[in-house]
Amino acid sequence: MNQRDAETIAIGTELLIGGRSDSNSLFLADELGKLGIAVRFKSVVGDKRVDIVTALHTAVRRAHVIVMTGGLGPTVDDCTREAVACATGHRLGRRKEALEGMTARLAQWGRTPNTAQLRQAMIPSGATVLKNPVGSAPGFCLSWKKALIISLPGVPREMEEMMRQEVLPLLCAARESSGRLPPAPIVRQVFHTFGLAEADVDAKLHGLIPKGMPIDLGLLASPMGVLVSLTMKGNQSAREKNRALLQKLANDARSRLSDWLFAEGRDTMEEVVGRELVQRGLTLAVAESCTGGLIGHRLTQVAGSSAYVDRAAVCYSNRAKTEMLGVPAELIAREGAVSKKVAAAMACGIRERANVSVGLSVTGIAGPDGGTETKPVGLVYIGLDDGTGRPVTQEFRFHGDRNVIKQRSSQAALDFLRRWLLDKA
Amino acid sequence: MNQRDAETIAIGTELLIGGRSDSNSLFLADELGKLGIAVRFKSVVGDKRVDIVTALHTAVRRAHVIVMTGGLGPTVDDCTREAVACATGHRLGRRKEALEGMTARLAQWGRTPNTAQLRQAMIPSGATVLKNPVGSAPGFCLSWKKALIISLPGVPREMEEMMRQEVLPLLCAARESSGRLPPAPIVRQVFHTFGLAEADVDAKLHGLIPKGMPIDLGLLASPMGVLVSLTMKGNQSAREKNRALLQKLANDARSRLSDWLFAEGRDTMEEVVGRELVQRGLTLAVAESCTGGLIGHRLTQVAGSSAYVDRAAVCYSNRAKTEMLGVPAELIAREGAVSKKVAAAMACGIRERANVSVGLSVTGIAGPDGGTETKPVGLVYIGLDDGTGRPVTQEFRFHGDRNVIKQRSSQAALDFLRRWLLDKA
Repeated sequence: MNQRDAETIAIGTELLIGGRSDSNSLFLADELGKLGIAVRFKSVVGDKRVDIVTALHTAVRRAHVIVMTGGLGPTVDDCTREAVACATGHRLGRRKEALEGMTARLAQWGRTPNTAQLRQAMIPSGATVLKNPVGSAPGFCLSWKKALIISLPGVPREMEEMMRQEVLPLLCAARESSGRLPPAPIVRQVFHTFGLAEADVDAKLHGLIPKGMPIDLGLLASPMGVLVSLTMKGNQSAREKNRALLQKLANDARSRLSDWLFAEGRDTMEEVVGRELVQRGLTLAVAESCTGGLIGHRLTQVAGSSAYVDRAAVCYSNRAKTEMLGVPAELIAREGAVSKKVAAAMACGIRERANVSVGLSVTGIAGPDGGTETKPVGLVYIGLDDGTGRPVTQEFRFHGDRNVIKQRSSQAALDFLRRWLLDKA
Repeated sequence: MNQRDAETIAIGTELLIGGRSDSNSLFLADELGKLGIAVRFKSVVGDKRVDIVTALHTAVRRAHVIVMTGGLGPTVDDCTREAVACATGHRLGRRKEALEGMTARLAQWGRTPNTAQLRQAMIPSGATVLKNPVGSAPGFCLSWKKALIISLPGVPREMEEMMRQEVLPLLCAARESSGRLPPAPIVRQVFHTFGLAEADVDAKLHGLIPKGMPIDLGLLASPMGVLVSLTMKGNQSAREKNRALLQKLANDARSRLSDWLFAEGRDTMEEVVGRELVQRGLTLAVAESCTGGLIGHRLTQVAGSSAYVDRAAVCYSNRAKTEMLGVPAELIAREGAVSKKVAAAMACGIRERANVSVGLSVTGIAGPDGGTETKPVGLVYIGLDDGTGRPVTQEFRFHGDRNVIKQRSSQAALDFLRRWLLDKA
């Protein structure tokens, strides 16, 4: 079976409406990419049988591997099973292995399947049941026309485990039995930059890829910076041949992006900062005002961050800045809470009180209210103190709504710390 | 022109890979819904001209309004203009009004268009240029077959302003000139619950919608709770007729969900808690351990939250709990940092030090490390103190990875505060 191109179909009216982060796509693109399968299309449809059928008809014309997520639960709006049966002309029947797996899973939680849950054991005839080692809904896979349809629950943890334990081995086995050579994994290099506008990143990378080279350059701007990707296109032999070229281009990109480049691949700013702190045996405390706790939250997303993060003081009120950090009330009155000197005093205050190596601070105006002509919404000061008596600060002027300004401020603060750590070498 | 069904096409290889929150879909579904236009399909394609063309061919067969976002920038990977021209058989040409708008916009920032940016003024022949009041890339719209294609930048702020100022008036005008009656807006009620499993919400709502009623019930579980939606289906006359019925069902749903229901529509937990605090004239301070600042971050996402949020202490280390909150080191040694008594002491400590009405605390084990047999990963204690000498606490046992446990803990803490506020009435 040809397995070159994939399409994902996410099912759920709520997904159509959006507003949530879609971690399933990231995982599926990564895992399929390792097998050399490229996700070229992603579709989202509501919980409507006829729309799921339409999406399947579209997908089968343009993809060899179709991964459907969602719509396998016990509730009234879960109709993926019916839609697949209808589209492919199979009948639904209760399958023993599906029922047993589900019953065993529910028994672990001290439950027995109710009528609604029994629907979850209905599987299209001819399909292979995929075990769910984490939740109650089994999945299934089914060959149809020239494609393989894989149907998995939409819950990320369940979907991920089933991909790892059931689907990927199955895709590998199908490929081996087809006698085709395994294609090279899709090679993709991702660079994360902060501090440059998208147009400036584009200008820096101008002419990076020689004309006619089978490598795609992608840029994506967000409040967290500009993401740059290099993806090797073409068939397997081209990929093999161009692997060395991609490495050369990646090195060129690294030197062009220089210290605006803060991370590669799935690495994050908070992981980079954490590693640099650990490497130097330094500890950190943070004093936040306009970011409201976001920097602390991000730093502690990293497992093991308790080794270097001692505390964060979110001093939203001026009184809190004085009481928690010892910033003189008189200084706040004179300079304003959003000022260079208060940022410096906050960084010193938190470092001394926490007795850590480095104090990092942020004070600014996130808006929409609170701005003035001289101190507009988006004005942000970052401070850093290492106890040498010379705290450093930087002024930023950000644009965007409250959330964007908080996000950018947290990124700017962590980037300021990263640059300081690298300078210390 | 019939404007019943819409499809959105988001363009960008990085979007295909996912991992980010998609706020554009939420906005588009809302705004189009107000005009009675339902988004039935959502497609995502990479920055590949042939794939964008394929997506357009698919969309035109099933939707009357096609909103494309992204791929209009100046960089090499932006090829939406070329793809639309190619799919619809129009030629691209530089348009005066597009160039003038862009030049005026760049002049405001003290720039002149460079060669790359000049590409942004290339518009398919026959298309209407849509002005961009926020950024440099103009959009355009074009009738093709029985559909209206609208092409907008992917940057949320630019897309939103262009929808409001250019696209929605245009859709209204097209409808009026067609002589059709304006369809009723799509009516959708959304309920947010916390504290019940999806299956339990489903059971509570069993039989809510009488058989044959043109109302869809949707459920979506996430670490933040279970979202319930009631959407009125059917044509315009059915929608008008059933409006009263939807209200009746919504009221029934409210009473069935009782106090697990914390918000409706686009309201969030932090907004609800903020309003309840303001209404009662109460101020708040938070002591966080395993959530690392997430509760403070969420509370301060609400504009005006400085009126009731005084501070948050993120005391990640045990020493920080003692120094910032006065939790006796001896109590931590005896009970463990993750315990009922420490949660209570943290809530009292932050309330006293901040001199506010209510102190809220969280201590727990977010994992992946740090769990023991008696205190496993996911064990979380919430504490609340109002200065009456009787702090209240609650124990939770959450499942999931580090991020899920942090998210659920923050939601549980805010929900605990919400319930306490409502009891106080």
